[in-house]
Amino acid sequence: MRNLQQKLAIARGEQPAELLFKNARLVNVLSGEIHRTNVAVDDGRVVGFGDYRARRVVDLRGSYLAPSLIDGHFHVESSMLTAPEFARAVVPHGTGAVVIDPHEYANVLGLDGIRYVLESSKKLPLDFFIMLPSCVPATPLETAGARITADDLRLMIGDDRIAGVAELMNFPGVFLGAKSELDKIDAGKHKCVDGHAPGLRGKNLNAYVLAGVRSDHESVEVEEAREKLRLGMHILLREGSTERNLAHLLPLVNAHNVQNCSFATDDKLAGDLVNEGHIDHCVRKAIRLGLPPISALQIASINTARHYRLQNLGAIAPRFWADMIVVDDLKKFSVRQVYKKGVLVAENGEFLGWIPAKIGSPRGTMNLRYQPGDFAIRAVGGKKIKVIVIVPQQIVTRTAIVAPKVEDGEIVADTKRDILKLVVVERHRATGNVGVGFVRGFKLNRGAIGSTVAHDAHNVVVAGTNDADIRFAIQQLERMQGGQVAVANGKVKAALPLPIAGLVSDRPLPEVVRGIADLNLAAHALGCELAAPFMTLSFLSLSPIPALKLTDQGLIDAVKMQRTTLFATA
Amino acid sequence: MRNLQQKLAIARGEQPAELLFKNARLVNVLSGEIHRTNVAVDDGRVVGFGDYRARRVVDLRGSYLAPSLIDGHFHVESSMLTAPEFARAVVPHGTGAVVIDPHEYANVLGLDGIRYVLESSKKLPLDFFIMLPSCVPATPLETAGARITADDLRLMIGDDRIAGVAELMNFPGVFLGAKSELDKIDAGKHKCVDGHAPGLRGKNLNAYVLAGVRSDHESVEVEEAREKLRLGMHILLREGSTERNLAHLLPLVNAHNVQNCSFATDDKLAGDLVNEGHIDHCVRKAIRLGLPPISALQIASINTARHYRLQNLGAIAPRFWADMIVVDDLKKFSVRQVYKKGVLVAENGEFLGWIPAKIGSPRGTMNLRYQPGDFAIRAVGGKKIKVIVIVPQQIVTRTAIVAPKVEDGEIVADTKRDILKLVVVERHRATGNVGVGFVRGFKLNRGAIGSTVAHDAHNVVVAGTNDADIRFAIQQLERMQGGQVAVANGKVKAALPLPIAGLVSDRPLPEVVRGIADLNLAAHALGCELAAPFMTLSFLSLSPIPALKLTDQGLIDAVKMQRTTLFATA
Repeated sequence: MRNLQQKLAIARGEQPAELLFKNARLVNVLSGEIHRTNVAVDDGRVVGFGDYRARRVVDLRGSYLAPSLIDGHFHVESSMLTAPEFARAVVPHGTGAVVIDPHEYANVLGLDGIRYVLESSKKLPLDFFIMLPSCVPATPLETAGARITADDLRLMIGDDRIAGVAELMNFPGVFLGAKSELDKIDAGKHKCVDGHAPGLRGKNLNAYVLAGVRSDHESVEVEEAREKLRLGMHILLREGSTERNLAHLLPLVNAHNVQNCSFATDDKLAGDLVNEGHIDHCVRKAIRLGLPPISALQIASINTARHYRLQNLGAIAPRFWADMIVVDDLKKFSVRQVYKKGVLVAENGEFLGWIPAKIGSPRGTMNLRYQPGDFAIRAVGGKKIKVIVIVPQQIVTRTAIVAPKVEDGEIVADTKRDILKLVVVERHRATGNVGVGFVRGFKLNRGAIGSTVAHDAHNVVVAGTNDADIRFAIQQLERMQGGQVAVANGKVKAALPLPIAGLVSDRPLPEVVRGIADLNLAAHALGCELAAPFMTLSFLSLSPIPALKLTDQGLIDAVKMQRTTLFATA
Repeated sequence: MRNLQQKLAIARGEQPAELLFKNARLVNVLSGEIHRTNVAVDDGRVVGFGDYRARRVVDLRGSYLAPSLIDGHFHVESSMLTAPEFARAVVPHGTGAVVIDPHEYANVLGLDGIRYVLESSKKLPLDFFIMLPSCVPATPLETAGARITADDLRLMIGDDRIAGVAELMNFPGVFLGAKSELDKIDAGKHKCVDGHAPGLRGKNLNAYVLAGVRSDHESVEVEEAREKLRLGMHILLREGSTERNLAHLLPLVNAHNVQNCSFATDDKLAGDLVNEGHIDHCVRKAIRLGLPPISALQIASINTARHYRLQNLGAIAPRFWADMIVVDDLKKFSVRQVYKKGVLVAENGEFLGWIPAKIGSPRGTMNLRYQPGDFAIRAVGGKKIKVIVIVPQQIVTRTAIVAPKVEDGEIVADTKRDILKLVVVERHRATGNVGVGFVRGFKLNRGAIGSTVAHDAHNVVVAGTNDADIRFAIQQLERMQGGQVAVANGKVKAALPLPIAGLVSDRPLPEVVRGIADLNLAAHALGCELAAPFMTLSFLSLSPIPALKLTDQGLIDAVKMQRTTLFATA
């Protein structure tokens, strides 16, 4: 700490402080109470409570002063924003730090992706701490841009901003004792090791915890979360764009166990962050649902800082960074001012912070190889085909067996029955892998929609009513070096370039928010009725999630976890 | 973790566990509740909750199963027991781990003393974690056996069993920014840094915390403790042999802040440990005073483990060590059984654990040089003298100014007015330093009592009615290589050898308990009415504590922190 001796003199009251927050109602997450005091700040840190002289005084007139909020688990790529633009979105909502898992960057760019995140998230008015992705690729049934092993994790785990090893999504691998997975846990043993175990309970959950996993953010029901909490897992109460578990899980939380809970968003779109909010939304919702405000703010700050060992963050007390928010009403919980290291970085929803010069983007990632004929599927006798059926608002799918529509011996989309062609083209290493299948649920009546965001391998995925538009969509995605696009009759209806890893925009926040909205409008104009058609599209390749998925390796039976044929055997 | 894959198979229920605790009421300090379950244990660790097969079953029939208890701050030398014999005393009371500050060993033996503690506390059914003493010597006004600097701390801080830097007792040095003290804090910055700041409040306390001190165990009043808690200090609720702050501080504790509190004993005599108990006594008392049992047990286990980062200790959950206690009634809180890594190590107060082979004692530490005439004080005209006045049950003293009793031109003890001669002889490096003064409060009517336990430098201290018995007492202490002794008319009335650093007995627990009792009886037979005469004696040299003290360097004005004369100036 530079000038510690000088700061001690300020704390002793012998010299004036830089800044004094007078007449605060301090939300003290350490003593678990709200009390009136003045808070002196110097050189970015809190130096003391009490009656201090200061060169500048902010009279809070009884408003609440609380520690800045912390997100315990977030994939920054889900916002499609760079780290600086993400900061621009969430800092006005009072966020001071995020623990992120750059799982998507890592699937596309490997260690280079993690390094890009580390570099691009420096020197912002928002602290980024990084959990190292542990499941790249997600499964052998999709072709990602990289593979990350325990040795790779060991290379990076020592960095000060690396908080540990991210969610061990291959939970059967862990509880069955697969050496590759236990090695990854071992790599993180001196830091945090996050879990991801939806629905896992009983003995297999015991084994998962015994292996060394110490958190979970996937509980949907309170009894599942209670079992995990009893086993010592830190429980992240998730409230993202689509997965919203907070209200369900809140009955679990009380003053005796609150220290083992954090808030997390996991995945949240740029527009939702701007409009609904970030962790402030979680605090608002929790208080509205009856949680004592002091508990809600502990969950939003100190608990997360302690679990992930974020030094001098998560509370307002001497030596802590002066990361603080001003709130006028704890019930409404609307963040009026946000301070980062004692500097006002947002006020009344407006970002006032600094954004450092842009760093270079990582290498281009669009390496496609395909032939015009690759998307054609010849009909086989009278055989029926398997169709992926979208379940609205969920990432699971169902399977339908239907008689295909056949033209000139080829199976084609049938808009009357809402059956579109779905194509996945490998984009990382030009393998020439192309998967073709059919999907129900988009209700497009013309054109195609495509995306290079396609969990978890992030190949090109396109759903369309005809091969020409599918091809056109792919060409547009190539031209943009990745992105999302809606096309019809050889025309672009809307497009959002995502040139950074094919996942993230290089444009400012408002443009990205508008771009996403335009895409949705365009898809709706093509007949789609889904709330978030591109998000739905992006999950159709996620091979570990039931029931039927399509990757670059073909149709995947995601229950049996193996490739399957398009044609139904029955 | 050896055989992790095999243990996972046991957790999955595919193989029987070593041990199953059936029908437990589990005191779950993680989920903050008490719930019924079975707990499976294998290879020293908890592997899971649930319905497991096991090679051995312990049916608890609804008794409580709680994590073993942890002492957050203790000076093991205060028990006068070696680490193994201390384990024998406290394991039957349910203690599973202690965080110790070997401050006395370090004052006598320096780094060798710390190394001796590390070595002698291994492989016991009680885990010792060590905070590195930060204040050796306590002040320049007494001659200790060693000096420990920040560089010394850096030498040892990396050891797995070193939890951090112990109490920064030189709190003015810290808040005033003395480089030596800030360097010591810096040495501990990646581990814990304990405080010791009796009565410190306001701006100087802010500075003390800002410097990096993160705990305190010296609060006497609840408002002092509240201020410290608000500043982010971990509060150790102390309940030792003499300092008993638990009842006073308990009103501070509630479910919203309990995570920031621990129990500690600081100093506790062997007999008190055996008869009254250890941390179990704190739990009993806290529950009796109205604290919810779950909170009391969190304070006694997980809170301390987390604060001091004791891996896999402080709770019952998979991967945690199977350090557990069985209690039949939470109100009475009498520990029936104690398990260490799944092995029964105490039952119904009886120690059943293992004690490894004795390790070699450290070098002898009695290096005295003095002349027969050193203890004589010639009277100066009609000048009055300053007398140290004992305040019963406290370590502070007062000062009296009295006319001395003079015989043959020399000032002598005056038993009629309860004025004894007090002698301190430096014993570490044969400097020949001898301090002579007078003390009121012992009420000896003949003989002398002496001790080589004499905080913090642990020189020889003797209070006596005549020089012959004082000399005889010193000779006996030399002969025993340190200890405590009561003599009269050239005869030993009681003696407890403390050959390990002059602080600790090499004998088994019962002999030490009896030895201490015999010493007290002997002192009482000589006329003393104090409850713990040798403890009182041992604090008369502690130069940082007001008001008047005697060290090997002479009479100390412990308010002004400087040497003073025996003769009153007035």
